[in-house]
Amino acid sequence: MKLKVGVVGATGYAGAEICRLIMGHPQAELAAISSVSFEGMALSQVYPAYRAFCDLVCGTEDEVLEKSDMVFAALPHGLSQELAAKCDTAGKAFLDMGADFRLESEGEYREWYGGEYTDKALHEKAVYGLPELFREQIKGKKLIANPGCYTTAVPLALAPALENGLIESTGIIADCKSGVTGAGRKPTQSNHYPELNESFTAYKVASHRHTPEMEQTLSKLSGEAIKLTFVPHLLPINRGILATCYGKLMPGVTEKQLREAYDARYGKEFFVRLLPQGETANVKHVRFTNFCDVSLFTDPRTGTFVAISAIDNMGKGAAGQAVQNMNLSFGFEETAGLLLVPPAF
Amino acid sequence: MKLKVGVVGATGYAGAEICRLIMGHPQAELAAISSVSFEGMALSQVYPAYRAFCDLVCGTEDEVLEKSDMVFAALPHGLSQELAAKCDTAGKAFLDMGADFRLESEGEYREWYGGEYTDKALHEKAVYGLPELFREQIKGKKLIANPGCYTTAVPLALAPALENGLIESTGIIADCKSGVTGAGRKPTQSNHYPELNESFTAYKVASHRHTPEMEQTLSKLSGEAIKLTFVPHLLPINRGILATCYGKLMPGVTEKQLREAYDARYGKEFFVRLLPQGETANVKHVRFTNFCDVSLFTDPRTGTFVAISAIDNMGKGAAGQAVQNMNLSFGFEETAGLLLVPPAF
Amino acid sequence: MKLKVGVVGATGYAGAEICRLIMGHPQAELAAISSVSFEGMALSQVYPAYRAFCDLVCGTEDEVLEKSDMVFAALPHGLSQELAAKCDTAGKAFLDMGADFRLESEGEYREWYGGEYTDKALHEKAVYGLPELFREQIKGKKLIANPGCYTTAVPLALAPALENGLIESTGIIADCKSGVTGAGRKPTQSNHYPELNESFTAYKVASHRHTPEMEQTLSKLSGEAIKLTFVPHLLPINRGILATCYGKLMPGVTEKQLREAYDARYGKEFFVRLLPQGETANVKHVRFTNFCDVSLFTDPRTGTFVAISAIDNMGKGAAGQAVQNMNLSFGFEETAGLLLVPPAF
Amino acid sequence: MKLKVGVVGATGYAGAEICRLIMGHPQAELAAISSVSFEGMALSQVYPAYRAFCDLVCGTEDEVLEKSDMVFAALPHGLSQELAAKCDTAGKAFLDMGADFRLESEGEYREWYGGEYTDKALHEKAVYGLPELFREQIKGKKLIANPGCYTTAVPLALAPALENGLIESTGIIADCKSGVTGAGRKPTQSNHYPELNESFTAYKVASHRHTPEMEQTLSKLSGEAIKLTFVPHLLPINRGILATCYGKLMPGVTEKQLREAYDARYGKEFFVRLLPQGETANVKHVRFTNFCDVSLFTDPRTGTFVAISAIDNMGKGAAGQAVQNMNLSFGFEETAGLLLVPPAF
Repeated sequence: MKLKVGVVGATGYAGAEICRLIMGHPQAELAAISSVSFEGMALSQVYPAYRAFCDLVCGTEDEVLEKSDMVFAALPHGLSQELAAKCDTAGKAFLDMGADFRLESEGEYREWYGGEYTDKALHEKAVYGLPELFREQIKGKKLIANPGCYTTAVPLALAPALENGLIESTGIIADCKSGVTGAGRKPTQSNHYPELNESFTAYKVASHRHTPEMEQTLSKLSGEAIKLTFVPHLLPINRGILATCYGKLMPGVTEKQLREAYDARYGKEFFVRLLPQGETANVKHVRFTNFCDVSLFTDPRTGTFVAISAIDNMGKGAAGQAVQNMNLSFGFEETAGLLLVPPAF
Repeated sequence: MKLKVGVVGATGYAGAEICRLIMGHPQAELAAISSVSFEGMALSQVYPAYRAFCDLVCGTEDEVLEKSDMVFAALPHGLSQELAAKCDTAGKAFLDMGADFRLESEGEYREWYGGEYTDKALHEKAVYGLPELFREQIKGKKLIANPGCYTTAVPLALAPALENGLIESTGIIADCKSGVTGAGRKPTQSNHYPELNESFTAYKVASHRHTPEMEQTLSKLSGEAIKLTFVPHLLPINRGILATCYGKLMPGVTEKQLREAYDARYGKEFFVRLLPQGETANVKHVRFTNFCDVSLFTDPRTGTFVAISAIDNMGKGAAGQAVQNMNLSFGFEETAGLLLVPPAF
Repeated sequence: MKLKVGVVGATGYAGAEICRLIMGHPQAELAAISSVSFEGMALSQVYPAYRAFCDLVCGTEDEVLEKSDMVFAALPHGLSQELAAKCDTAGKAFLDMGADFRLESEGEYREWYGGEYTDKALHEKAVYGLPELFREQIKGKKLIANPGCYTTAVPLALAPALENGLIESTGIIADCKSGVTGAGRKPTQSNHYPELNESFTAYKVASHRHTPEMEQTLSKLSGEAIKLTFVPHLLPINRGILATCYGKLMPGVTEKQLREAYDARYGKEFFVRLLPQGETANVKHVRFTNFCDVSLFTDPRTGTFVAISAIDNMGKGAAGQAVQNMNLSFGFEETAGLLLVPPAF
Repeated sequence: MKLKVGVVGATGYAGAEICRLIMGHPQAELAAISSVSFEGMALSQVYPAYRAFCDLVCGTEDEVLEKSDMVFAALPHGLSQELAAKCDTAGKAFLDMGADFRLESEGEYREWYGGEYTDKALHEKAVYGLPELFREQIKGKKLIANPGCYTTAVPLALAPALENGLIESTGIIADCKSGVTGAGRKPTQSNHYPELNESFTAYKVASHRHTPEMEQTLSKLSGEAIKLTFVPHLLPINRGILATCYGKLMPGVTEKQLREAYDARYGKEFFVRLLPQGETANVKHVRFTNFCDVSLFTDPRTGTFVAISAIDNMGKGAAGQAVQNMNLSFGFEETAGLLLVPPAF
């Protein structure tokens, strides 16, 4: 019997992408979906690409909770804690696509998101779902905080260098570029087609909420209190994040040493592809997948390390990673449902 | 044991898409590929999205012929006949993505393509692979001419109206708009990014080679010698064809009658989705799939019928249909390998 | 002393484009602007491209009326009649970018727009501002209805053929494709970047409000009651309309005759460029200008005439034509302010 | 009498943009153009947007030399030196769009470009044409090296901070993103529409030829030997460069101090617009212009300075700056021909 999956907030981009992956998952099935904006409407009316694949109709959060063994919640931050508690009580697994369970420090949550931790015991149970860096903690867990998109791409690009002391722990810069689906499905002036088309800019310069989450991950892995400068930019494409990350090479460190460290870390990972020397990660090559491509460069003229990673912000940066976490939680093959061959163009 | 599939011309867009679909096919496997331009290179070097999915290296046409039970050829017109003959002799199935076996009349082939039929007996064996219109003829056949992209979208939009005498057989107009992958992977001035971006125009107005192929299909189905005006346009998007087709309503014909005729024709077809009244086909909703969405309208003010169909020019318009034909040829489920849930955005 | 120009609704796309053209006009100056949504904000805050060129702040409609000799109104239909009356009383020239004064028949206005003509005498004074077809009527007039975008592109493509009886007056089809700025600056779901990007569809099939306006123009010119089928499509580009128009050739009519008729009509027009045989109009070549490119084809196989025109929907389809009308109204050179050399790419 | 301007390489993007600006220049006229690939063809055939504005036909380099008072050369590097010498002998002004005269050190030229300086006396006469940083040297000069696109955007973003010792002279990073016209008009695989569309990647990571040119400019201004890490990326848009530049703040330096330094440097510059606090430069707002928008940020958490500049790579990054240099050379108003109000969308 298949695992019954429910998606709260199914008509947003992340929610819809989870639905797609679950529809193709060999051990799970989409049991129920909900949406505040589209209650009573079929998912295939909102996304006609799903015609002939899905005839579920959007119900309420409670209906999802009732019909599912595992609930994925794609909700604005602040709204997940109550639902997580209900799932916990009802013995259902819960995965939060939002930020409510990502930060261990309530202080940082308060500072960057402006909210409170309403149930501290529940937060203790949550695990941070970045499998390639924290796989063992995730296995079997039933309350999972799915990382943000930037906070997947940047730590995967930098972790092996920092863990192995190959770059300095200060002066790190993450210059990131994201496709526009990351900003959600709700129409806004800045994502109105004529405004975004043929445009490019940065936003929330050195002040984006994903900053403390990246720092938490990298600090844990390196054993040092990492602070970095994070500048996101908005790309006029639908999907993808390219993270161009800069660090200062420790004296004497060579590109060969770096490649060995990355290879040791990721050589057996299916979803992280370390590119050969001279090749550069491109968002196009990871579209619609759960892959993270990582490419490495050094600038000996200035002693600078450059790691460039690419993910699909809706795949490894959201729904793909969520399914990967579900697989770890329930003991399925880690790649189950994530092996769809992507289009090449 | 799986059917061994070979692809000649695997690094072009249609060839690469066939590879993608075969990689995900339950009863077939990609056995060999060839490419004149990229011989010796791995397919995943040409299309890095295939990294981790395919490690085949491009070989020669002869290698493909030797290793495969069925050969798909994505070649410029004029080059398929010789290969088809070799397959025929060797007892291999052959599917031609090009135009060499599509036209029954050698005269029309000569007029529009400028070539000869080198082996008339072979042409007699060929079947035209548009399953929804000619399914029974395709079953079990080993020499299949895969239709062109426009020539799939237009006949599917018009067939039920013409077959049932609901529109006149003259005065038909097919105003079509195609994504740019239809023009191939070879860089050209007109498809250079800065030139095509923010542009839109028509090309080969009333003189495109797909014209006689559409007419052949519609004439066969209607029993009348159909001539139509076909004007293709080039869209600044990667995939998709929208065919806006116009015909003159026979006196007294209502939209209801038209819907009933289309429903009778396509109601049980998985890959043709007749849209409800008021909805319009959109190329986005069929991207990366083998579907053809069909929407119907009438203009009672002028007595005009408007049928709008949408396909992915690389899916139902090329590789998807090719795999559907393979399924019919070998007795697999017709949908095998074609059920990947597409991305919604 | 320069003519003082005011723009009501200056922060919409059409309004902003009028401002741009007036800023570069040798005999007019931008005296005042208004906006309901952005009152109190500088135009260059809404459109930062205008920084260093314009420091006007959005005021009220009344302020515009007071400070201007001529008022351009870019308002939703139904709202222009009152303002036009005020201008008439105050002796100011008025140009309406909307539909309130375009249709001579109040019945058609009621049928397609659902409103009433509140001041019939005022409607008698209005002139329809399509200079290449109705130049003499426009000269010196102070109440001008600026045509819609589709209703400029389609009549310019078809007028000479119909006027000269070279095509039949029935069975005309206008298959049009428009850039997205035509839908305005207000964010909507269908024009949200991720939804429109890589999409293409038709809308308001055979039911768009511009239909009676095209018919009015073509009926006037041909002396027959023209009805046509109009199907608009939405292109994922910012600017431009391509109108592919089809008619039935009268017996014996040749492409040469058609070219002569078009040349006689447009040979001396600066803003209509009749393209040489074999070339096709492209929206890219008219971007940011007041040009209309017209290309002609015949399909002798089916007796069909194909005229393809291209305009910038915000130029010749809105603001450019508005300025051309102002020039005619005030006796300026017809090309004044409209000679900016456009970018080639 | 107007200055007679000739353009060698007029059919490339930079050449065509120079033509556009000269066509609109009050004191200069386009006298002759040449193109190796399109000799004998009218410029308006290559770029139909210029129909009705320009009827010049592409001739030879020698014809351009003969007919012009000033020659602009848009040639591959290595080919300008001979032409520059001819102009020098003939007493014609010469502006090089390429790299042959940009680097003062022949050693660096040899290292990064692989060529020699064939006439050292001629190189002594050349001046580097970045007016906002080296205006006085440019005035009246007749041999001008026009800067590259990245090498305009990055120094303008960083100069005031480095000149005033507000950031450290080491550890500087320039993460740049360029529209695709920067790669030229010749079709390539990577700029083929279907490949570039929906893609994003970096290229020539820490190894791009513009690196020593940036360093030369910043070293001159700061008095220190600046080395920086430069990583360019390719954007799927036509025009624009966004340069996100990072430096380490000197102890105690505040954003206020930085703003004052930038304001002192650029307050009177027409073409550099220092944006108010909180606003971020966007390539869209400088399209088709000679402006450079500069926005400033600090990250007090990490002691990092972030300066983000935006230019049109074909405007301030190529043709616009070339015309600005011509104006300085011949004593015209510096803004002459560069005041076209750009489209807002």
